[in-house]
Parts: sequence; C-alpha cells; structure tokens
Amino acid sequence: MSIDVSEIGEIPAVWTRRHLLGLEELSAEELVCVLDAAVMFKEATGGCRQKLSVLAGRTCANLFFEASTRTRTSFALAARRLGADALDFSASGSSLSKGETFIDTAKNIEAMGIDVVVVRHRTPGTPHLLAQQLDCSVVNAGDGPHEHPTQGLLDIMTIREHRRELAGLTVALVGDISHSRTARSNIWGLKRLGAHVIVCGPSTLVSRRWEELGVEVSYNLDDILPRCDVLNLLRIQFERQSTRPFPSVREYAHLYAMNRERLARAKDDIMILAPGPINRGVEITPDVADGPQSVILEQVTNGLAIRMAVLWLVCGANLRL
Amino acid sequence: MSIDVSEIGEIPAVWTRRHLLGLEELSAEELVCVLDAAVMFKEATGGCRQKLSVLAGRTCANLFFEASTRTRTSFALAARRLGADALDFSASGSSLSKGETFIDTAKNIEAMGIDVVVVRHRTPGTPHLLAQQLDCSVVNAGDGPHEHPTQGLLDIMTIREHRRELAGLTVALVGDISHSRTARSNIWGLKRLGAHVIVCGPSTLVSRRWEELGVEVSYNLDDILPRCDVLNLLRIQFERQSTRPFPSVREYAHLYAMNRERLARAKDDIMILAPGPINRGVEITPDVADGPQSVILEQVTNGLAIRMAVLWLVCGANLRL
Amino acid sequence: MSIDVSEIGEIPAVWTRRHLLGLEELSAEELVCVLDAAVMFKEATGGCRQKLSVLAGRTCANLFFEASTRTRTSFALAARRLGADALDFSASGSSLSKGETFIDTAKNIEAMGIDVVVVRHRTPGTPHLLAQQLDCSVVNAGDGPHEHPTQGLLDIMTIREHRRELAGLTVALVGDISHSRTARSNIWGLKRLGAHVIVCGPSTLVSRRWEELGVEVSYNLDDILPRCDVLNLLRIQFERQSTRPFPSVREYAHLYAMNRERLARAKDDIMILAPGPINRGVEITPDVADGPQSVILEQVTNGLAIRMAVLWLVCGANLRL
Repeated sequence: MSIDVSEIGEIPAVWTRRHLLGLEELSAEELVCVLDAAVMFKEATGGCRQKLSVLAGRTCANLFFEASTRTRTSFALAARRLGADALDFSASGSSLSKGETFIDTAKNIEAMGIDVVVVRHRTPGTPHLLAQQLDCSVVNAGDGPHEHPTQGLLDIMTIREHRRELAGLTVALVGDISHSRTARSNIWGLKRLGAHVIVCGPSTLVSRRWEELGVEVSYNLDDILPRCDVLNLLRIQFERQSTRPFPSVREYAHLYAMNRERLARAKDDIMILAPGPINRGVEITPDVADGPQSVILEQVTNGLAIRMAVLWLVCGANLRL
Repeated sequence: MSIDVSEIGEIPAVWTRRHLLGLEELSAEELVCVLDAAVMFKEATGGCRQKLSVLAGRTCANLFFEASTRTRTSFALAARRLGADALDFSASGSSLSKGETFIDTAKNIEAMGIDVVVVRHRTPGTPHLLAQQLDCSVVNAGDGPHEHPTQGLLDIMTIREHRRELAGLTVALVGDISHSRTARSNIWGLKRLGAHVIVCGPSTLVSRRWEELGVEVSYNLDDILPRCDVLNLLRIQFERQSTRPFPSVREYAHLYAMNRERLARAKDDIMILAPGPINRGVEITPDVADGPQSVILEQVTNGLAIRMAVLWLVCGANLRL
Repeated sequence: MSIDVSEIGEIPAVWTRRHLLGLEELSAEELVCVLDAAVMFKEATGGCRQKLSVLAGRTCANLFFEASTRTRTSFALAARRLGADALDFSASGSSLSKGETFIDTAKNIEAMGIDVVVVRHRTPGTPHLLAQQLDCSVVNAGDGPHEHPTQGLLDIMTIREHRRELAGLTVALVGDISHSRTARSNIWGLKRLGAHVIVCGPSTLVSRRWEELGVEVSYNLDDILPRCDVLNLLRIQFERQSTRPFPSVREYAHLYAMNRERLARAKDDIMILAPGPINRGVEITPDVADGPQSVILEQVTNGLAIRMAVLWLVCGANLRL
C-alpha cells in the first residue's frame, strides 16, 4: 500500500522558501507550485489515504497555543502520511508555565532535531519571529487575525479542482471578516491568481478599509449573490468577540445565512465553501451544508493534501540551503 | 522482529460487518470468528508484543468523550501493532467547543482519510448514529450503560483460554450491574455461546428485570458461589452514581467482596475476572486480586489481542464492500 | 536516511541493569558506558536527527505525574528515533482518578506489552517501587527532589564533549540546590568520575549537610568563580517553594546571576550549563545565556542522545535476563 518514493521527484526550482508564513508574500508561481504539489500528493495517495516515505526520518512538531482539533490533526496526519514523525506540544503543561520565554521553548524544541515547527498563536507575527530565530522550517498555522495560509491554499485548491482557472471568477467571503485570518489569506491568494474578491457582512464586521486590499466591500448578500461563482462562508467566531457585533444570531442568519431561498437566486453552479467548524443555522442551513453545491468535506481532504505539499516543500528547500 | 504479513491470511468469510457496535447482534459464529482471530494475533506476536504490518497505511482515530486511559491506550496500541497509525481526539480542545455538531466533527475526521473511528460516549446509541453517517468503520468503545463489546469479548476470550468451551459454564457477574455496559456485553456474548449467566449484587444495583435477558438474578453471593465456574467482579462505578446505592462501602464489601474466606467455599478452579480499574478492598481483596485464581492481567493482554482482531476484521470487511 | 542496524552492535558486557533508577548506584564504568553509547548514537544519527531501527517493535510508555514538556518529549523522541513506539500516559484522565492504585495502573500498562516505563513522580522512590513490581524496564525521569539521572548524564556528557576528562575539573552547581534532583544526580555522577563539586547558593537553599556527600559548600559565587571550570545554573523552582527562600528575585540575581561582569572574572574557557527551562534575568542574563560559553542548547541535543542510549541499554539488558 506504500507508494514508491521515486514517483515524487525533486521539489520544483521555483520553490525556495524554507518557511510558509503567509500568502501575502507568495508570487502566483509559488502559489501554483503548492497547489500543483497538493494535487500530485492527493492523486498519488488515493485521496490522501495512503502513506509515502518522502519525509522518512523527519520530525514535525505542532506548537499550538490556541485550541484546535482540525488543523492540528491535519498537520499531524500530513506529516505521518509523508513518513515523518509528528509531535504535539501544547501550551498547558509546557515549560512556558515555568517562566521560560516563547523563543527559548522553540529553540529547545529545535535542539531536539525537529525539522518543521508548525505554530499557531493568537499574536500576529509569531511565526515570523520564530522564523528569524530558528534554523528549522516554520509553518504558520494561524497567527491571530493575520494569516492562516494553509487554509487559504486549501480553499483555493478546492475552487481550482472544480473550475480549473481562478482568473475571472468572483469569490465572496461572507461573514466575520474582521476577526478572520482565513479572509486575509484567501484575499492575498485569490487576488494574486486573478479572481475578483468581495467581502460581505454586517458593517460591524466588515470595514470599508478592506477596499485598500483591492477587494469589493458589500453589506448586502442578496445584492451580490447573482454575480458570485463561489461563496466562502466564514464562521462567526463567537469566542473572539468581546462585544456583540449584531443584534441577534437570528437577525444575522436572516441577512447572511446561506439557505434554500438564497441558493435558488444564485448561479446554478455556485460553489459553497466553509472553513469549519460550521455553525449550522447561523452561516449556513443544514440543507445547503449537505447539498450538492457544498464542497465543505472536500476542503477537509484538500487540507491534508495542501499540508503534505507544504511540509514537503519547506523541508526540501531547507535541505537545499 | 516484524512478522511476515503472509502469515495472516484473508479475513474469514463469516465476518461481513464493517462496524462493531455491540455483541447483542453477533451470531455465535461471528463471536467465535473474533475470538479465534484474537488468539491468532496473540500467538503470532508473542503475546501482543511484536508488530505486524497488516494495516500499514491505515489510520485509526480514537474519539473519546469520556475519560479513559486503559481502553483508549489499548485501541491505540492495537492499531500500531497492526502497523496502522493511531490518532487521538479528545472532547476538550475540539471543535465541539466551537459549536460544531457531533456528526460534523466525525465527518471531518472521516474526510481526513481515517479508516476506523473508535468512539466512546456517555449516550447510548452514539456509535450506531455514527455508523449510519460515515463510510469508514466504527467501533464502539463504550456507549453509556449500553454496550462495551471489546470488553465483553476480552472477558470471554480469557475464560475460553482456560476452559476451551463456554457451553455449560456458570458465570456470575457481581456488583454494579445497573450502570454496567460491561455486564450487558458479557451477557449477550456468554448466552450466545451457551454459558449460564447469573447477575448478583444488592437489589439497588440489580433489578429483577434482568431476568428478561435470560439470566438468573441473585442478591446473595454466598448462595450462588459454590455453583460458579467464573466470577466477573464489576467495578463499583462511584463516578456514575448520583445517590448512594448501599449504606456503606464496608457493608458492600462485607456482602459482595471476593476475599479469602469466600474463595475457600468456591470451586477449586474458579476463575476471578475484573474489568478494572479495580477498587482493592471493595469488590476484591488484595490477596485474591493477586492470587492464582485471578486472571485480571491476562484480561489486559487479551484486550489488546481482541482489539487487534476487531480492527483487522472491520477494516477487511470495509475493503471488501 | 535510515541507518543500518548492524552499525550498532551488542550492548556492552559492563551494562547489566534493566532499570535506570539513579546515578548514585552506578559505577564509573557504567557511567562511561552510557556516555559512550550516547556519543555513538549522536554520531550515528547526524546529531540525533535520523532514525534507527534498533528498538523496532518495542514500546516505551511515558508515565508522567508532574508537568513536563521537555523531558517527556525528549524520551518520546528518543524512543521513536530508535524505531520504538512511544505512548503517553498522563495523570489526568487516567484510571487513578477512578480509585486504582499506582501499582495496578503500572501493571496494567505492562500487561499491554510495554517494554520500558519512563516515570516521573513527585514522590522519591516511586521508580524503585515500580522496578520491584514490574518485569519491564523502568527509567526514572525525576522522582521528587531525589534523582533525575538522565539530566545528570546529559550534563556530564556535555562537559565531557568539551573537556574529554571529568577528573580534575571543578564544577559548581549554583542556585536552588535543596529542591533539586538535578543537583543530586550531578553530584553522584561527577564525583564518581573524579570531578570536584561545589554547591553554591543562599543558605536558605544550600545546607551545610551537603558536605556529607563529599562536596564543597559555598554561599558566595564571587569567591569560588575564579576556580570553576564549569557552572551549572539550576533553575529557581518557584513552583516547588511554599515560602520565599530569599528577599527578592532582584537580590538573588544580584548575588548569584551569571552576567557579563561575573563572566569577565571567570576562566576564559568556563562552560555555562543550565538544565532549563531558564528564567532569563534570574539565574542568567540573556547575553550570557546566548553567549559563546553557554552550552544550553547542546544539552538539549545531548539529552536526546543520552535517552537513546539509556533506552537501548535497559532494553538490551532486559532481553538478556
């Protein structure tokens, strides 16, 4: 059931980065390089179900300072499916509670011969700080509201699987834009590949200033809906909000939830994405979440493929340096 | 130290289930199929100490919503000894705390290319619900007070190793029957294989209605003791009880604890089982727990063998479908 | 990337122990045996970065009852780099909370076919108790303030890499001696190999009674500093102290912190060790921690090598018995 390593060749010359910190700094060629590698890994492993040995002997460490099952598990599985070992560090029970600095913790992990540190932290820029201090590779798994590059990549991969070309598509990010690292990573990636991006939500969650990133701002989903090829329904992150940004969940759902009625007014082949975990009945009704336009579970599988591609690329680039 | 895969053949034709949800629905042939497979794995691996590669490339996920060291570890080890990867999901830190439904969490796990979900949940029927919703295999590791099929199987395997035939044996389940999924799984399995089963304990923990399952009900251990071939001493599950079911631990121990005096009045070759963790001095005194009639630690080793057999069978059946 | 097993030969005849409980009982030959094996593993694996298969099919279990990231991870990685499986048991969520005794928990783990139990517990002697009760190997990863043998060994290994011979060196252990298992393990190991050991700190943390172990006691770092070849700066373990052993952190740092001024009065080739996690600005200033005399991160890498050596030796000795 194991795949021949020789099927996976050298990492492409266009990829020279030993870290993946964000999508903002990636060129279109680099984005396509990751996306193509992810497709290759997905195909070579029967939908990410089989195991390779391209990273045999390597160790990837998850250094997560925010709760996560999905992303943490996806990275751990991606590492193992490449033949690497995966290690979990959690904030609780760690040396940080004994007064050690964050950088010292990371340097200690690196000194144990770790090849890749996958980091999630509520402070924007944390992965960038680590990348400056460590010789091993650093992958950003979410730095506060800043970036979540593998989420952006898996969203784009999923669109690309169904539409081939990103150029010319209209993609709307709907909902909680202000707290969303997923929105930022999607915007950088989608724009770079030629898509038109709309951010849409209540004005308390979507500032006019987003226009500075070259995206269209809308406060009315029903207005933009007929133009959209793709909807990406961002989760209302109740846990990040100190004040209520809208009068009630019911009112939010009335104005922005994707439901059967709205679907009837959308393009026939509209794609519905959601980064999950989804709040059924808030951003999306169950019939739409489980309907034929929804690619939510494909996103999960593609997440594994993207993380396999990213770990392979950053390890390869680091070896070459 | 690795075993040749060719030693382990195809899964037997009698086994067609891709899930193991309970022992109630298993035929005698299916029960014997699991038990024989477990014996084969135990022998092929030097008492479950060595590693096979029959499930290489597969991934088994533990989805436990109740505290467990023993069963969770036993399943993880069983998966690894078959060459599979084992992943742990815990209730805390998971997406459930972000408002995701249980089924969505499970479907997300499945979309990561998981082959078997091993689930423990306090709600009876949870594994059955998952089995309806998922394409991967589901193994019940305990659903509230309903069933704990691998525990029942390992108890029966241990008896069978010492007595060959279950038919004709008298097996007493002693103690906290009402809260016990272990009791239910034992009853279904033992009855199907022809044993006579007695449930015995204080009337607050043993209802007359158990007779409807075809078992004998007793409130007096000393009465039934001379007839018993096997005693399975169920743990008093203090953590599941909101009211005290008996006046004092001392009184319980006086009436139901297996101790030296009672052992003297039992058959010479009586077998003492306990699913553990044991409360020394409550269900069993230390001299009996550590004595020659006790097979408590053999049960632990057999648990590993049973779980290897179950994971192998459900994966094989799933492949064949 | 995998190393040929044949490169690693038989375990040396001098090593006959199936447990590592402390350094107090080890002869100089046994200490050198572990240190040499660690150097061999470090070299054979490119600085502990590559994977061997000398313990393929074996399983090492971490049974930690005190918070630890560093040591727990180091043992888990060491096991995996030798090709073994590593399992984690934590105190929370375990059967101990259901009333099981510590020995029963350990015997259950052993019955699952575990080869080595690595134990950390706040009670001195816990690993020794386990070693009496279990047939598998037991490694002490810290028993209260008593011993932490792999920490002592990695400290000594680091000194030996830079100075070849321990005999004739003067090594000062500075700081929180009274709560320190690291101090005890260092003292036994260093003395046995011929080093002169000084313990130095405030009188509330360093008793005169340490002289009974054959070490020099000092309350004034500046007095002894010019004579020292090595300083091992023990962490002030705020979490183990119920009363404040000194007026203020600032006062402690003034008298005992290793800083630029003190470094200027020390031997040119002084080595600065710290078992970590370090409190920057308390035991050590950042410029010294990150300076050329500091070998703090080498200690982390050597910790992995020492643990690989120890797991290999105790497993080999257990097989031979």
